[in-house]
Amino acid sequence: MTVAEAPVPETLPGLAPEPEPRAQQGIAIICYSGDLEKTWAAMILASTAGAMGMPARVFVTFWGLQTFVREGRRVTGTNWMQKMLSVMSRPGIRHRTMSKMNFLGMGPWMMFRLAKQYGVSTPAELLEAAEMMGVEFVPCQMTMDMFGLTRDDLLPGMGEPVGAATYLSYVAEGAAPLFI
Amino acid sequence: MTVAEAPVPETLPGLAPEPEPRAQQGIAIICYSGDLEKTWAAMILASTAGAMGMPARVFVTFWGLQTFVREGRRVTGTNWMQKMLSVMSRPGIRHRTMSKMNFLGMGPWMMFRLAKQYGVSTPAELLEAAEMMGVEFVPCQMTMDMFGLTRDDLLPGMGEPVGAATYLSYVAEGAAPLFI
Amino acid sequence: MTVAEAPVPETLPGLAPEPEPRAQQGIAIICYSGDLEKTWAAMILASTAGAMGMPARVFVTFWGLQTFVREGRRVTGTNWMQKMLSVMSRPGIRHRTMSKMNFLGMGPWMMFRLAKQYGVSTPAELLEAAEMMGVEFVPCQMTMDMFGLTRDDLLPGMGEPVGAATYLSYVAEGAAPLFI
Repeated sequence: MTVAEAPVPETLPGLAPEPEPRAQQGIAIICYSGDLEKTWAAMILASTAGAMGMPARVFVTFWGLQTFVREGRRVTGTNWMQKMLSVMSRPGIRHRTMSKMNFLGMGPWMMFRLAKQYGVSTPAELLEAAEMMGVEFVPCQMTMDMFGLTRDDLLPGMGEPVGAATYLSYVAEGAAPLFI
Repeated sequence: MTVAEAPVPETLPGLAPEPEPRAQQGIAIICYSGDLEKTWAAMILASTAGAMGMPARVFVTFWGLQTFVREGRRVTGTNWMQKMLSVMSRPGIRHRTMSKMNFLGMGPWMMFRLAKQYGVSTPAELLEAAEMMGVEFVPCQMTMDMFGLTRDDLLPGMGEPVGAATYLSYVAEGAAPLFI
Repeated sequence: MTVAEAPVPETLPGLAPEPEPRAQQGIAIICYSGDLEKTWAAMILASTAGAMGMPARVFVTFWGLQTFVREGRRVTGTNWMQKMLSVMSRPGIRHRTMSKMNFLGMGPWMMFRLAKQYGVSTPAELLEAAEMMGVEFVPCQMTMDMFGLTRDDLLPGMGEPVGAATYLSYVAEGAAPLFI
């Protein structure tokens, strides 16, 4: 029995016994949407990656950044336009609405009830789990500027604000991108 | 001149004469949306990948799972919330609506008419082609639970239900993710 | 001091002096959405990649293609359905509307005003920058057919129309996909 008999893909038999070239490929999620369902999808992927020991980073931008505003911050920003945007779309991970079938909150209520019934964690629980398991959440500096958000407005666990170049450097280094 | 001079990445100089590191990279689509246009985009990518002999898997989740319910299943689920969700958004690949300009069905009607006129296959045809060419469609277990869908509700060609961890393992092994 | 001391990731010290296995991984964006915010996100990623010298291609398809119609083209297509679609959703990068909070144009007006105030370039400016820095924009042939768009309708800098197979070949060759 030789090393070449091992059922490893993409190897050169007898020469490279431990290749696994992309086995360490992590993910780099762009958390763009602020909708409840997509927030849920992003948090499931992030927390599962964390649990699997797969490197995972979440770049939080545009509407997604509203999701990562601390509970209790109701109106954010310094000028009237920023304040109006925050009023029209309530910030915080517990206040996401659905992209369709929202029905003035009945859709999300049903989703949360079904989730509880079938043992599915909420986005807020999944976010907490992901952070505990080492997933990095980094806010987009440009979005913070445009929406008038300060680091004090955001959840405490978030990293330093960065730009698109930092996100793209994750991808250049081999992380698989997901735009959600 | 030695073998080591060849501009090959990810190799051990002098040991690996046939690198092509990512030439076999397949795709792993998350079919998340149930909208007609995105369903179309996902099916075009999946069937084209199949035709090219490119490894392709489609993880069907959230609203996307409604697309893969068998023709004729009108109300799905076991409790009133699940039934109501299926009634509000008619399941089946032939009943997708547009994310905008739906106009009570006139938008989709126009799209299908234009598609026929210009020789573009419908999502249902593309799905069939993709399956014939070896593309795997796997349903998300969690979504099935929350929507109350059984395997009997889903199209017969679908694989075993899996979770986010299985999807992420495709990516960890090198498949390029697409969240649609 | 030896070569092995260089802070390079994923190397075999002493054996592979120039590894950078995935450092050259480029991106292949599918510009699918015609919404203002997603157009903005796609243009930020494309122009930033260009500025970083990272290979970047943008495959423009479905609603996204409306964004790349020349300024001044108001009604496009040859039959009534194509004309109606272009009338319902005004083409051109300067006429994108928001996916939510559009408020008859007040949302975009606020976004542009905030962008100007905080020194953020507009999508049109970012597109120009991306093209100058070598990012390729290629239109989807199938979408052109269905919407009745000719090359003369599209922005002059765009490449030859291609299909999904060409896009997937970018990914097969190692480009990281982003579906926006």
